[in-house]
This record gives sequence, C-alpha cells and structure tokens, in this order.
Amino acid sequence: MGDLNSRAIGVFDSGIGGLTVVRALMERLPFENIVYFGDTARVPYGIKSVETINRYALQITKFLIKKEVKLLIVACNTMAAVAFEAIKGVSPVPVLEVIGAGAAAAAARTKNKTIGVIGTPATVNSNAYARAIHRIDREVRVFSRACPLFVPLVEEGWLDHAATRLAALEYLRPVLAEGIDTLVLGCTHYPLLRPLIADIVGASVSLIDSAEAMAEIAAGLIVREKLGNPSETPPAYHFFVSDVPYRFQTIGESFLGRSLPHVEMVKL
Amino acid sequence: MGDLNSRAIGVFDSGIGGLTVVRALMERLPFENIVYFGDTARVPYGIKSVETINRYALQITKFLIKKEVKLLIVACNTMAAVAFEAIKGVSPVPVLEVIGAGAAAAAARTKNKTIGVIGTPATVNSNAYARAIHRIDREVRVFSRACPLFVPLVEEGWLDHAATRLAALEYLRPVLAEGIDTLVLGCTHYPLLRPLIADIVGASVSLIDSAEAMAEIAAGLIVREKLGNPSETPPAYHFFVSDVPYRFQTIGESFLGRSLPHVEMVKL
Repeated sequence: MGDLNSRAIGVFDSGIGGLTVVRALMERLPFENIVYFGDTARVPYGIKSVETINRYALQITKFLIKKEVKLLIVACNTMAAVAFEAIKGVSPVPVLEVIGAGAAAAAARTKNKTIGVIGTPATVNSNAYARAIHRIDREVRVFSRACPLFVPLVEEGWLDHAATRLAALEYLRPVLAEGIDTLVLGCTHYPLLRPLIADIVGASVSLIDSAEAMAEIAAGLIVREKLGNPSETPPAYHFFVSDVPYRFQTIGESFLGRSLPHVEMVKL
Repeated sequence: MGDLNSRAIGVFDSGIGGLTVVRALMERLPFENIVYFGDTARVPYGIKSVETINRYALQITKFLIKKEVKLLIVACNTMAAVAFEAIKGVSPVPVLEVIGAGAAAAAARTKNKTIGVIGTPATVNSNAYARAIHRIDREVRVFSRACPLFVPLVEEGWLDHAATRLAALEYLRPVLAEGIDTLVLGCTHYPLLRPLIADIVGASVSLIDSAEAMAEIAAGLIVREKLGNPSETPPAYHFFVSDVPYRFQTIGESFLGRSLPHVEMVKL
C-alpha cells in the first residue's frame, strides 16, 4: 500500500488548459506527485467530433496508466463531457472528471436554482453539465452557451482586451437574461478570464471554477480511499506533451501560476 | 497521356481554409477534377511545431499520391511555409504552394516596394513570405504580423463583428505604420475577412488573395506542361477529411461559395 500511495495523480487535458487544475491540485494536495499529459499536437478538442475525441482520450489514458498513476483526473471539459465512460471502461484506477466537480459545486451554490454554464462547443453540445446537475437536483434550470473564441483569446493573452470584453458581452447576454445566480466556467481556460467575466456578470452571480472544485473532490477521494502520499518531502511534477513544448512552456506559466519545470515531448 | 491529363488536382489543407483555393481553382480551371483533403481532426496547424507539421504534411501527401493526382497544391500557408521541401521530396508529381503564388502576385503589385504579410504564427515565424518575395526582388521591404485570432473569428462567423474589427485594428496598425502599399492575406481563412480588412487598410493598400494567385499559377503550369483535362463535361470533386464532416460541411460552404457535395471521412 505504501507503494500505491506514493504513486502520482495522473492529470490529462487537450493542451495547456488542464494546468489550471494542476495548479489547484498543487495548492490543495501539496504532497502529491503529479504526472500531466497535454495533447498539444492535436489541441483543441472542443471543435472535434465525439468519435475522434474518444479515440484520442483512450490513447492518453493508456499512456498515463503505463506511468502507474493511482488516480486519473480528466481535466479537459470536452473529454469529460464525451469520453468519460470510455476512459472509466479501460482504467484500473479511479477516474475523476471536472464536469461532475463543477456541477456539484454549482448545485450547492445556487439559491434560485438557475445556473448558467459556458464552455466549448463540444462541451455545451454534449449537455453533460445539465445532466450532471440534474443528477443532484432535478429542479435546477440550466442555461448553456458555447464560447468558441474564449480559448484563442486566452491563448493570445488578451485577458482584458476590448475585443475580449465585446465577445464576452455577446456570449453572456443571453445567459444573464435567464436570471442565473451561478455561472460555471466550464472550460479550463476560462479561469484566466475570471476578472473580466466577474466584471460583466456583476456581484449577484457566483462564478464556479471547475478546477478548484475538482481539487476539492480529489482531496476528498484521497482521504476516503486512504490514498494519500505519506511523504512530506516536495513532490515530483512531470509534464508530458505531444508537440514540441516551446509554446506550452511560454504560455503554460500563466495557467500554472508559477514557473514550469522540464516538459517532455512524447508521441502517442 | 490522356490518362494522366484526366487525373485530378490534389489540394490539401489543415482543415477548411483550403476550400478558398478550391473555389478559385473551380473558377479558373472549370474542367479539372479535384481531390481535396482537409485534416480537420488535427486542425489548426498554425500553432504547432515545425516537426509536427512536417510529419502530418507527409501523411497527407502520401494519401493524395495514392489517389493518383497529376499535380499537388499545398493550400495551407502553414504547411507551405514549413513543409514544402519535405513534400516535394516525396512527391512524384509537381507540387505548387500558396506562398510562392502570393509572393509573386505581391511583388508584381507593389509600387513603393513595401509589402505587408499577415498570417498564422507558424507562417509568420517561418519568414517564408519574405524569402519568397526576396527571391523575386531583393529591394522589397516586408513587414509581417501574426493574427492568431483571425481563424477562430472566421470560423465563428464573426466576419463583420465589432470584436473582429478591434482585433484587426490591433493587428494591422503596426503593419500599416510601415507605409505598405500591398498586403498579402497569407492564410486561406483571411479572404472571408477581405471586406473588413479592406475597410481598415483603405483604398491605397492593395490586398493580395493567395488563393486567386494560386489558381492563376496552377493554370499557367497546366498549360505549360500540357496537363489540362481534355474533357469538357462537369468535373468530379472529391472531399476527404480526417474528422466527422459535420462541421466541415456546415462552415465549408461559406469558404467554397457554393454547396458542398459528399464529404468522406478517412483516418490517416
């Protein structure tokens, strides 16, 4: 069991975005080793079909299982939305995913039972947040909106640009018109737009960051299943990507909120 | 020779954008058969590394050569910029690419020998347009600017949106400040933004559409090499993509300027 406990948590994403989940895990579980895989050669997933997303997700799952992780976290909302069952089907270790985490946090927060969800086209089309929220409370009304430009805007670094504000106003207007009191940031890139989004939606709407919710749920599972790493030395963090990591390294630090250690390229 | 002449022109792109080249070819060479491949599962290429772009480009080249094309056209500026030599190295048929075409048209058009080029980060970083222009005229000054948001803005359909205008103003301002009289639209998505870009740069700057320039050069080669299809019946157009073609079909029609026939999915 000592051996199992010292194993890493495997986190995977279509690219850079999952680093916001790694950041939340580092802060919530500071003694856990982490292995990250970002599919930077094939990012973004949000505009791909269900079949292709499933195929790629299973390749990544197999890669991380070979790394002998003790727990898998699907940090990519798109993969969580469409490939979670397939991933669970091949994984010998527990699998958690961001959508369940964000849905639970949002259902606990809303007072007027009216929740907004923003995400990529694939996430929104899958309707996975609405299903996850209704598994908890069938009375909640969910209003979703795809925001396809948010990922490229974040990656361009235009976190407070006038063009980003115009895009956000256009995307958020119909959701706000439904009287939501809670808004799920249903894509790992969106926490970087949190200040701008908070400014647009106003103080009466609570923002749910799926990355933070995910870390909280992972911490709960680790305590419950007695999976915690007993070591109190600084843990090891390994980052793998599928393309040359130059861009990952440059942009990644703003997602991780700290400098990135060595990043290794692998071909799946 | 009759057999060779009736073969199709192979056109390939990272996704949908190359359809602007197909459109120009359909209009300039209305009796030629065309086989198109769009790598929609792995689009976009503009933010990938040189190594990855080369690997993917060679997979596509092999696919089209198996389709027995008589001529290959690299419609994707990014692949043309970084993988043209590798593609030529494995192709038994002539290979043309959009960058040489756009560069020649721009060099012929400029009066003050000052040309602007806009494209994806990979195209701009490669400096391929500047080299292609300098092969024609070493006195021309070239000013390039990557516009990473233009592709997602076009795919969102925001061709005349205020956010697109703000992004275009920001991207074009430094290029215009150099006193260019010619601007190359160095990405196959950009012709859809032509009205908005023309409005921003004003009548004193000529816009060069690489797709149109490409069709002109292909027509020249076909006459010179006596490769023209002698048939005068409506030609066959075949479209292959690497992801489920739902989105390709929906968005593609605005690129092609007409309805898309059957689109087939293949795995490379």
